[in-house]
Amino acid sequence: MRVALLREPGELVVTERPAPQPPAGHVLIRVSAVGVCGSDTHYFDHGRIGDFVVESPLVLGHEAAGVVEAVGEGVTALRPGRRVSIEPGVPDFTCEQCLAGRYNLCPGMRFFATPPIDGAFAEYVTVHEAFAHPVPDELSDDAAALLEPLSVAVWACRKARVGPGDRVLVTGAGPVGLLALQTARAFGATDVTVQDINPDRLAVARTLGADRTRDAREPWPAGETRPPTVLLECSGAAVAAAGGIRALDRAGRAVLIGMGAADIPLPVSVIQQRELTVTGTFRYAGTWPAAIALAASGRVNLDALVTGHYDLADARHALTAARDVPGSVKVIVRPHGA
Amino acid sequence: MRVALLREPGELVVTERPAPQPPAGHVLIRVSAVGVCGSDTHYFDHGRIGDFVVESPLVLGHEAAGVVEAVGEGVTALRPGRRVSIEPGVPDFTCEQCLAGRYNLCPGMRFFATPPIDGAFAEYVTVHEAFAHPVPDELSDDAAALLEPLSVAVWACRKARVGPGDRVLVTGAGPVGLLALQTARAFGATDVTVQDINPDRLAVARTLGADRTRDAREPWPAGETRPPTVLLECSGAAVAAAGGIRALDRAGRAVLIGMGAADIPLPVSVIQQRELTVTGTFRYAGTWPAAIALAASGRVNLDALVTGHYDLADARHALTAARDVPGSVKVIVRPHGA
Amino acid sequence: MRVALLREPGELVVTERPAPQPPAGHVLIRVSAVGVCGSDTHYFDHGRIGDFVVESPLVLGHEAAGVVEAVGEGVTALRPGRRVSIEPGVPDFTCEQCLAGRYNLCPGMRFFATPPIDGAFAEYVTVHEAFAHPVPDELSDDAAALLEPLSVAVWACRKARVGPGDRVLVTGAGPVGLLALQTARAFGATDVTVQDINPDRLAVARTLGADRTRDAREPWPAGETRPPTVLLECSGAAVAAAGGIRALDRAGRAVLIGMGAADIPLPVSVIQQRELTVTGTFRYAGTWPAAIALAASGRVNLDALVTGHYDLADARHALTAARDVPGSVKVIVRPHGA
Amino acid sequence: MRVALLREPGELVVTERPAPQPPAGHVLIRVSAVGVCGSDTHYFDHGRIGDFVVESPLVLGHEAAGVVEAVGEGVTALRPGRRVSIEPGVPDFTCEQCLAGRYNLCPGMRFFATPPIDGAFAEYVTVHEAFAHPVPDELSDDAAALLEPLSVAVWACRKARVGPGDRVLVTGAGPVGLLALQTARAFGATDVTVQDINPDRLAVARTLGADRTRDAREPWPAGETRPPTVLLECSGAAVAAAGGIRALDRAGRAVLIGMGAADIPLPVSVIQQRELTVTGTFRYAGTWPAAIALAASGRVNLDALVTGHYDLADARHALTAARDVPGSVKVIVRPHGA
Repeated sequence: MRVALLREPGELVVTERPAPQPPAGHVLIRVSAVGVCGSDTHYFDHGRIGDFVVESPLVLGHEAAGVVEAVGEGVTALRPGRRVSIEPGVPDFTCEQCLAGRYNLCPGMRFFATPPIDGAFAEYVTVHEAFAHPVPDELSDDAAALLEPLSVAVWACRKARVGPGDRVLVTGAGPVGLLALQTARAFGATDVTVQDINPDRLAVARTLGADRTRDAREPWPAGETRPPTVLLECSGAAVAAAGGIRALDRAGRAVLIGMGAADIPLPVSVIQQRELTVTGTFRYAGTWPAAIALAASGRVNLDALVTGHYDLADARHALTAARDVPGSVKVIVRPHGA
Repeated sequence: MRVALLREPGELVVTERPAPQPPAGHVLIRVSAVGVCGSDTHYFDHGRIGDFVVESPLVLGHEAAGVVEAVGEGVTALRPGRRVSIEPGVPDFTCEQCLAGRYNLCPGMRFFATPPIDGAFAEYVTVHEAFAHPVPDELSDDAAALLEPLSVAVWACRKARVGPGDRVLVTGAGPVGLLALQTARAFGATDVTVQDINPDRLAVARTLGADRTRDAREPWPAGETRPPTVLLECSGAAVAAAGGIRALDRAGRAVLIGMGAADIPLPVSVIQQRELTVTGTFRYAGTWPAAIALAASGRVNLDALVTGHYDLADARHALTAARDVPGSVKVIVRPHGA
Repeated sequence: MRVALLREPGELVVTERPAPQPPAGHVLIRVSAVGVCGSDTHYFDHGRIGDFVVESPLVLGHEAAGVVEAVGEGVTALRPGRRVSIEPGVPDFTCEQCLAGRYNLCPGMRFFATPPIDGAFAEYVTVHEAFAHPVPDELSDDAAALLEPLSVAVWACRKARVGPGDRVLVTGAGPVGLLALQTARAFGATDVTVQDINPDRLAVARTLGADRTRDAREPWPAGETRPPTVLLECSGAAVAAAGGIRALDRAGRAVLIGMGAADIPLPVSVIQQRELTVTGTFRYAGTWPAAIALAASGRVNLDALVTGHYDLADARHALTAARDVPGSVKVIVRPHGA
Repeated sequence: MRVALLREPGELVVTERPAPQPPAGHVLIRVSAVGVCGSDTHYFDHGRIGDFVVESPLVLGHEAAGVVEAVGEGVTALRPGRRVSIEPGVPDFTCEQCLAGRYNLCPGMRFFATPPIDGAFAEYVTVHEAFAHPVPDELSDDAAALLEPLSVAVWACRKARVGPGDRVLVTGAGPVGLLALQTARAFGATDVTVQDINPDRLAVARTLGADRTRDAREPWPAGETRPPTVLLECSGAAVAAAGGIRALDRAGRAVLIGMGAADIPLPVSVIQQRELTVTGTFRYAGTWPAAIALAASGRVNLDALVTGHYDLADARHALTAARDVPGSVKVIVRPHGA
């Protein structure tokens, strides 16, 4: 099969390797679509993210969907031919974190496209059957792949306990911010503001249901509107995190999703006086059923984010589309042909 | 002013009494619309509900909206002319339950149309300014009145922690059931089943977004669909409560909203083996802002429930419309003319 | 090795069978102590509990501790010689319930001494390494075995969210009730009442820290003391469940632990008017670390419950001690000699 | 009556003024004991705390107890002669925050010794009857006064959801830290570490039950012990907040209690990767019943913190004792004589 290998920062080559065999409890999946994430681009550019360093050639891509091609021993829930969305991080299942239902915090997690685990820029991949989620016909292949970033948004909205009556501020209108916007609305939020510095992205946010958009560089309009009860920080910018927290209403909840600097000055006296809750998210746990339901019912539009398709041979350009192609939001690699 | 007085069970007379003056912190409201609730009908028929006995003439009606006519001393948040929805139960504010945010459980609660407190079948009423909630222009007078039963549904969905991924079973398709259906969807539930024994009401449920309806007399179809994660029991029928609980998935949550028998046999072994949570609701607390937002944004359609309007002089017929008028769902009394 | 086999109701024979080999990820444990639970006695008497029927000879016993004798392939956390307490229910780890942190609700659970899974009335047993919890020297072998019923109490107190300021009512002063009493105090409850019909057991409850005991047949003393905020129902008696719920304060929480009738009439109108929460427990999940800490620090006294020791050859009498030996609370079988 | 008035920073004078009359719903209290808090000292030294500026003469002191001397109109729960502990912040009761049970966040809060509201360095004060909490005989006057700082600790432990199995790190061993230590243990924490830079205070922590103490300047001992699950930050030092958060286990909870810099650099990437929850506390809500129960049962020792008593005439020295008197932990002013 063909895979796209990251050999060195900036050097991606398509090469052949034997298709894997599914181990017991695993399935082999013919990959139909893979979304490109900012972390893929970061590995491509820099060869590392924080402590994760690409030390040997790595297959990128972790937002993936496909069709079950074969099943390993003991697999009972899936059969060949089933369309599935891949949850790309498989934990060890038996550690304290896993047993507590926090498998995303499992120290033994093996996550696609995180060194040294290969990802999905490949014609075939294997995954544990419990992490290959059947998808209904309503979902396109692209949408099935994008259930992964949607899961990030679902997890954040759960952490923030978003519901009717909440006023939500989404900082950053990239793919995750646009999904956070839609997901917050699907959780019942009746007032969602999106901020960014890019007017094009804010225009997309408005078409996707933002009640209000604002230029992140403008001062927060004190008193004009009621302060938000929830911050979903999707930009990774320190100023957005601190400013968003400062904008919150008493008893507000801030969820820091976007990755940025290791340390950020936060307004602790405001956190105290208003008894704000600040938390961060690390991927997700148990989100696929809700994400599938939201996308299948049309409450979240995943296809609307897709601005380009690339063949595996062209994965290199897919990885840089977000910065090189104007108006690009989310691009998809199709390992068997765009 | 004119009020409709319940003198004896079955005897409602329209009479004159002086309009009230708003005490300090209270507002005087010119009542525009009052929904008729099953409890009003029950008082009309029987002169009591449980321990609450009508011992002297009582004004019924607790689902009310109107316009601020005058304000008492110290009122700052409202001015004459403001359209408001009335939250009809005012607590003592300072007891342990109030201070814990559970003001609906306040032993000193004074609730409209609950003996000996008069209700809103009157041209004017007074209420504490904090319990007169301004409504936006998007809401009709009827809808502003029906924020009260919507609050019942919002409170129940909060108790059940309804969210995306939940499969909700609503038992009973009366006004509260139809609101529970819509509210559960607004909270993100992606699969809502409504059951009743009345096919006409089930038809209404389908037009209001039920994914599925079922005849309550049919056995629950084991294995056909995934079991519900949430039960919102709105019928008050013992068999619906027990059957609905029995139908729940592991870790499911049941909220018993409908009032019925004092004691009901519940499937305790099922509650234990699946670790279900069963709770009941008593009115609501802090629901108006969310209810207003849901109704104003169109996520919950309150006007769709209204099947008739009555003048105060005709309040007697309004009280019995639900059982006498075929197809009746919710009727409205307009104290200043239908 | 020797095991005690339940062949027919009432017929327990000690026989020889080969000691098991630990599969990969499992450890072999030389069993030092096994507590006798009411469910063991029930299987001995009736050959079944609900849908679980003893259809072939079964080894009873699920409250067990011992010493690691050998480890299977891939075991890293344990070595031979380590004293451990056995968590007797091992789930499939990968189902929806397990991934949600509710592994006690796993449909694929394999639980000691639940047909057709053998228990610990045996010289040796194997268990998954994640379910063999190392215990500190402060704990006796008996106490290490009794971490299992202590886990039941810890789980119930977590479900009830017991904390300082709570007034707790424990109904039933058998082993689980006496542990619920101690555990509720360890969670910070500052007022614990225990009720039973057996004055001897109530005397034990007082020595173990009950602030107050009462005869279950007396009417609840309305108004004398403040109503409890939490009910921990440990008797399985319908009248205790309903009466205990009726005794609760507004917003109280009831946890039904004791197993009894499948259906029980519960005071639904009280549940509604006071917005009580009623739930049941099914075993426990993730409780051993807390249980170990509570027992090792002396906050819960497990040894105080032990009223007798039996050799494996005498397991038959251990199974009936609770009803045959006056003053018996909890007895222990020692497979390698009492 | 005599009061101690702060006229200018550093200038405290004892003067006479008429004793207040209790308004409706309020009680007049003869003050028996008032604890000195760091905020009193800060006002004394600097004349301000953040935005709160002493612009006219102010009576300090907000940790107070006494005896009801007279009751205002409509008071039903209290009678003259009743010993009470004063909850020193009375909210407006009817705002959104109050109705949600978060009265500590009420924008209309009137708090003792916070400009322009006078405090309790006076022979008599008045307070709303709902905020004068009867105390049992087991509590000394000093202890009754110190229920106020104990409430800070109870609130923090509730925010952190401390319970059995938790490993708690308390940073800062001043009065609040020493109460947080004891309170965490009373909530069931079975492993509490206290850090400070003052070895004398760490010695006190050990006598009050700390399992372990450490010099705050030493690096955190990676791997030696299991990381804490809860941080109770009581020092206000930026380095303690950031270091304490960094020390937490996956899914840990940090509560920032100590007041310090407005903005503090926090390890956001750690908050994200471990999904930590960070919150701050602002006083407390609904804590007195639990605090009374903890102190009366002896689980928290308040008298052990008291290192000195002062007459009102000597309040000036009480205010500076914490820095001037070696070994001082908490001092008490007795308005009617030390």
